[in-house]
Amino acid sequence: MIKAGIIGATGYAGQELVRLLLAHKEVEIAWYGSRSYVDRKFASVFGNFVKLVDDVCKGDDLEKLADEVDVIFTATPQGYLQGILTESVLEKAKVVDLSADYRIKDVATYEKWYGIEHKSPKLIEEAVYGLCELNREEIKKARLVANPGCYPTCSTFSIAPLAKRGWIDTDTLVIDAKSGTSGAGRGAKVQNLYCEVNENIKAYAVATHRHTPEIEQTLSGISGKNVMLNFTPHLIPMNRGILITAYANVVGSHSEKELKDAYYEDYKDEYFVRVLDGATPPETKWVEGSNFTDVNIKYDERTNRVIMMGAMDNITKGAAGQAVQNMNLMFGFDEAEGLRLVPMVP
Amino acid sequence: MIKAGIIGATGYAGQELVRLLLAHKEVEIAWYGSRSYVDRKFASVFGNFVKLVDDVCKGDDLEKLADEVDVIFTATPQGYLQGILTESVLEKAKVVDLSADYRIKDVATYEKWYGIEHKSPKLIEEAVYGLCELNREEIKKARLVANPGCYPTCSTFSIAPLAKRGWIDTDTLVIDAKSGTSGAGRGAKVQNLYCEVNENIKAYAVATHRHTPEIEQTLSGISGKNVMLNFTPHLIPMNRGILITAYANVVGSHSEKELKDAYYEDYKDEYFVRVLDGATPPETKWVEGSNFTDVNIKYDERTNRVIMMGAMDNITKGAAGQAVQNMNLMFGFDEAEGLRLVPMVP
Amino acid sequence: MIKAGIIGATGYAGQELVRLLLAHKEVEIAWYGSRSYVDRKFASVFGNFVKLVDDVCKGDDLEKLADEVDVIFTATPQGYLQGILTESVLEKAKVVDLSADYRIKDVATYEKWYGIEHKSPKLIEEAVYGLCELNREEIKKARLVANPGCYPTCSTFSIAPLAKRGWIDTDTLVIDAKSGTSGAGRGAKVQNLYCEVNENIKAYAVATHRHTPEIEQTLSGISGKNVMLNFTPHLIPMNRGILITAYANVVGSHSEKELKDAYYEDYKDEYFVRVLDGATPPETKWVEGSNFTDVNIKYDERTNRVIMMGAMDNITKGAAGQAVQNMNLMFGFDEAEGLRLVPMVP
Amino acid sequence: MIKAGIIGATGYAGQELVRLLLAHKEVEIAWYGSRSYVDRKFASVFGNFVKLVDDVCKGDDLEKLADEVDVIFTATPQGYLQGILTESVLEKAKVVDLSADYRIKDVATYEKWYGIEHKSPKLIEEAVYGLCELNREEIKKARLVANPGCYPTCSTFSIAPLAKRGWIDTDTLVIDAKSGTSGAGRGAKVQNLYCEVNENIKAYAVATHRHTPEIEQTLSGISGKNVMLNFTPHLIPMNRGILITAYANVVGSHSEKELKDAYYEDYKDEYFVRVLDGATPPETKWVEGSNFTDVNIKYDERTNRVIMMGAMDNITKGAAGQAVQNMNLMFGFDEAEGLRLVPMVP
Repeated sequence: MIKAGIIGATGYAGQELVRLLLAHKEVEIAWYGSRSYVDRKFASVFGNFVKLVDDVCKGDDLEKLADEVDVIFTATPQGYLQGILTESVLEKAKVVDLSADYRIKDVATYEKWYGIEHKSPKLIEEAVYGLCELNREEIKKARLVANPGCYPTCSTFSIAPLAKRGWIDTDTLVIDAKSGTSGAGRGAKVQNLYCEVNENIKAYAVATHRHTPEIEQTLSGISGKNVMLNFTPHLIPMNRGILITAYANVVGSHSEKELKDAYYEDYKDEYFVRVLDGATPPETKWVEGSNFTDVNIKYDERTNRVIMMGAMDNITKGAAGQAVQNMNLMFGFDEAEGLRLVPMVP
Repeated sequence: MIKAGIIGATGYAGQELVRLLLAHKEVEIAWYGSRSYVDRKFASVFGNFVKLVDDVCKGDDLEKLADEVDVIFTATPQGYLQGILTESVLEKAKVVDLSADYRIKDVATYEKWYGIEHKSPKLIEEAVYGLCELNREEIKKARLVANPGCYPTCSTFSIAPLAKRGWIDTDTLVIDAKSGTSGAGRGAKVQNLYCEVNENIKAYAVATHRHTPEIEQTLSGISGKNVMLNFTPHLIPMNRGILITAYANVVGSHSEKELKDAYYEDYKDEYFVRVLDGATPPETKWVEGSNFTDVNIKYDERTNRVIMMGAMDNITKGAAGQAVQNMNLMFGFDEAEGLRLVPMVP
Repeated sequence: MIKAGIIGATGYAGQELVRLLLAHKEVEIAWYGSRSYVDRKFASVFGNFVKLVDDVCKGDDLEKLADEVDVIFTATPQGYLQGILTESVLEKAKVVDLSADYRIKDVATYEKWYGIEHKSPKLIEEAVYGLCELNREEIKKARLVANPGCYPTCSTFSIAPLAKRGWIDTDTLVIDAKSGTSGAGRGAKVQNLYCEVNENIKAYAVATHRHTPEIEQTLSGISGKNVMLNFTPHLIPMNRGILITAYANVVGSHSEKELKDAYYEDYKDEYFVRVLDGATPPETKWVEGSNFTDVNIKYDERTNRVIMMGAMDNITKGAAGQAVQNMNLMFGFDEAEGLRLVPMVP
Repeated sequence: MIKAGIIGATGYAGQELVRLLLAHKEVEIAWYGSRSYVDRKFASVFGNFVKLVDDVCKGDDLEKLADEVDVIFTATPQGYLQGILTESVLEKAKVVDLSADYRIKDVATYEKWYGIEHKSPKLIEEAVYGLCELNREEIKKARLVANPGCYPTCSTFSIAPLAKRGWIDTDTLVIDAKSGTSGAGRGAKVQNLYCEVNENIKAYAVATHRHTPEIEQTLSGISGKNVMLNFTPHLIPMNRGILITAYANVVGSHSEKELKDAYYEDYKDEYFVRVLDGATPPETKWVEGSNFTDVNIKYDERTNRVIMMGAMDNITKGAAGQAVQNMNLMFGFDEAEGLRLVPMVP
């Protein structure tokens, strides 16, 4: 039994960590960190935890927290952790960072897209990018894991098998993404009010979204090429879920079956990736509340283009679920412990 | 390890049973019954079960099913089970019926409200009304349990402590109920299309809803009086959740604290009922996907009326969750096995 | 052609006034007041007005505004107008106040429910309560109209015919109300975020909502009795719409037909109130975007109680539409000018 | 004053025609056709029309209807009109067909994508494709207008200015489309139930949607090239609205300003197309209930790709609104008569 602390426990990803860890056999939550709600009962902020959590919220004293727990989850605003994370903390506790602070390996790229100077660039080198299915062995040995973004996780699973084999021309790659509103966080902003989001759809951060370089970095690594692509996210009137629809030209001559077999092959041992049968398009509802990502493709011989699709729960596999999966790897637990969640319908 | 069969596995309540039983330590599902989808893979109807369920759907041969399993769940249309349930079936397997066929003890009342002649009235006597918190001991010995309706379950928890003590005048009792659309089932009807329900609210079955006599029967039993009340359900644009707002005049002189203490006292040992602190009104989101019912009250001294509120997930505690809880009691399992579900937010 | 100014034009009710007035034959909008957006293009705040409104937002200098326009609409926070409205303003322009500042005639009652000291109690006397169907003749002569609240308007239409005739026992009156989220305004609050409201329902302000004394005042006037009732509003995951479900015991012996005929009689000449045929329950979708209120009743002989129902668009008839209707009366225009809106489905 | 008849008046597009024509100065609706509801009051099917429409529904005797009206709108299932439309009908009345029967000029292409043999191919030649902004002069002279599909209308407005100038490589064109659920019609299908659509998103008809050849036909005509593209529609949990996000490589060297100016130039005299300022992405909410289409672009110099975006109400400009606009042109009315609708927010 290890002890865990959460910084940012009253955000949507933070409280999802609580939901998952409460059902985890090897972990006890010892620290509910939330600057906004210090000394207030956690269950009074998120009523779903009434009777299940009696703790009050604490602050974010990282050094003190590191003394008390084995693993720290940080679900904090961009740029925050990099200013307070120290060698001393990492010597005492392992860290899974759900923010983007340590995801981008190239500091200049980070600073360009995020518009801030990185405050602990040396730790970027040490940090392991926590896409479990990709970096499993390195994660097992890591002290600091950079938990991937929601869009990058779903995009990678949707595209990786073809990018890896060089069967798509990555210069033609376009990713059109759709996300539920929980991805926008729990901050009080007019644009995220119910009446602004409901019965509405729009693109946002067109050609400027910060997950772009993260996706490019991963696909470049997988394909061995310098990938540059278009990524357009859209805000959808629903709470949870991400859907990826990606397009690319096929290189060489490949039947739809051949393309699809690449997915079956790459994911045959991956519990959390489900390759759908036939022409069934992924639906976000089929993965809601679970750690699964569903993928499928369609080859259009008219245009010689392949449409790659993926569905995922942005708060689970796209944030808290993957963070727990990373923790499982880092501590030698069963990788799926606490994550064998059956998706909830309707 | 016992074996379970489900008749009506491809309805919303039926597939929720699958979600719950897959995570239950003592049960294996041996029969996915669905007349509409015989021989079709269950996971092709409900994509959430891809990789988790490989079985194909079977028909509804109750005798054959009873030979193969220990417990049968029937999530079937009103009037169906009463026509096919036999002594022979009950000798071989226990039955939890999620329909209303055996809930109403008075046959005349049943026939008046449901508009059909009951086909096996003798079994009504044997059937135990499966509101676990109320009839725990009888359920443990039962062969046939009538799983309560969603509205009656939530209404009872909201009102019982005051009705039992005679602290409300049940002649003044009004129940205004609101339900998510999954309560309307998965039949293809124009009135349940997305565009008809979304951005809309209406009352339905005003003064004629069939759950009325069921609520009256339970509250009459609890209060020792002949309860006759008004019950008005409303259709809400959301998938899951029931909210009860009930009104009654207070009999005698009782402070709000005294009224509230009745709830604390009655539910102090009931895991699945949560009495909320202070003036916090129950929200359906706080119980979503779980087996909890949240209750709270407000006493209005201006009118000497008490407002009793309850929130519940209509598919879980209001259907499949309570059915599993009944099964746990009937087979001597831990009552909460498979039901320690943390509500999912957002 | 008269000129109108709007204070609070960038709230939901304010921008609805713009939508309505743009199509009004007798009015030109001369002042888009919005303290938060001074000097910003109005159409950049509400993109629906691109190409239709070129004006920039102005501040809330009431005296200056009164010099420039014939009528002022104030869609401002509670307590604001009462501090700045002067005799001088009223000499220059007529005022329709969409806030609650001048609705409650009894100052003590106002101060108790709103928790603030009233700053211009003398104007309360002059102000006419702008429920057009009720106070038509007084409104025509008014300089200052207190535009009714959304819940009170819909409640009154639903209950008035029976209250007026003394056919219901107002001591037993319970109003259970449901509102779309636009009623909560456009302020950036966590509780009104999409993910907090969507897939959720709750009661709020139980037994303490400020519209309670307003409804009581109106029904007391209509019935000639001192009405005290319970009013419970609920937050519904939809943008627009209010549904009222009210309950009361019937006094004397009245058939459902007799009760219903009271509605047909009282509303036969009222264009904006539609009495639905048969047992059809009102649906908010049937009035969306229009100035209609739909009403219907159901008499339950079992309990001798009548269920009174009403559906209305909270932003239109419940705010901006009624404000325009008041203006039409005050300036001698056709009462329905600009308000013959066909409800929009779906 | 002319007389109009509607075949298919009880579908979503049909009843939207009623909404629009009721406010039209030059038209009277003389025939509410609906096979499913013959002899039933139209307002009992769509309650929004209570008090506004007293007519009962009639059948679909086209010859008889043509004797009684000047213009016929057919909002009928694919393949229906082509089997009953005759020269005799067209001699008596003008026809605006909202189905796809006469949109595709190449019969072989039609039959391939729609999977049915065309029953009146000769009329295809005569039919004018009713994209008003494109074919205004021909529409004025037409007897039979093929009202465009929703996706093609919004796609064309989003892409046309660049396709026309040859500034995009149409071989790289990808259209990712998102539609509200009303586009799926009012048929009772499980897949369109509230609980199946709400809190969910999926692609459908990937690489096989029938609007693909219609978009290709129009863009081929505009660009003078044989356009072949990918079109992927997605089902969004909202009632109304279509959003187009299209991607293509830029040909030659063009600044973002230059690209944008093409839109300002082409649409400067088009009332119903609004080119948004700066980087503002179109939102479907800003056009809801109106006949507007909002467009904007973003040039990504990293990939030399332009992202073209458009938002439209699928039932208004995407169906009934455009049909009325076509009628206005065919009868010499003001093109915007009955269509100066202010979008409704929220």
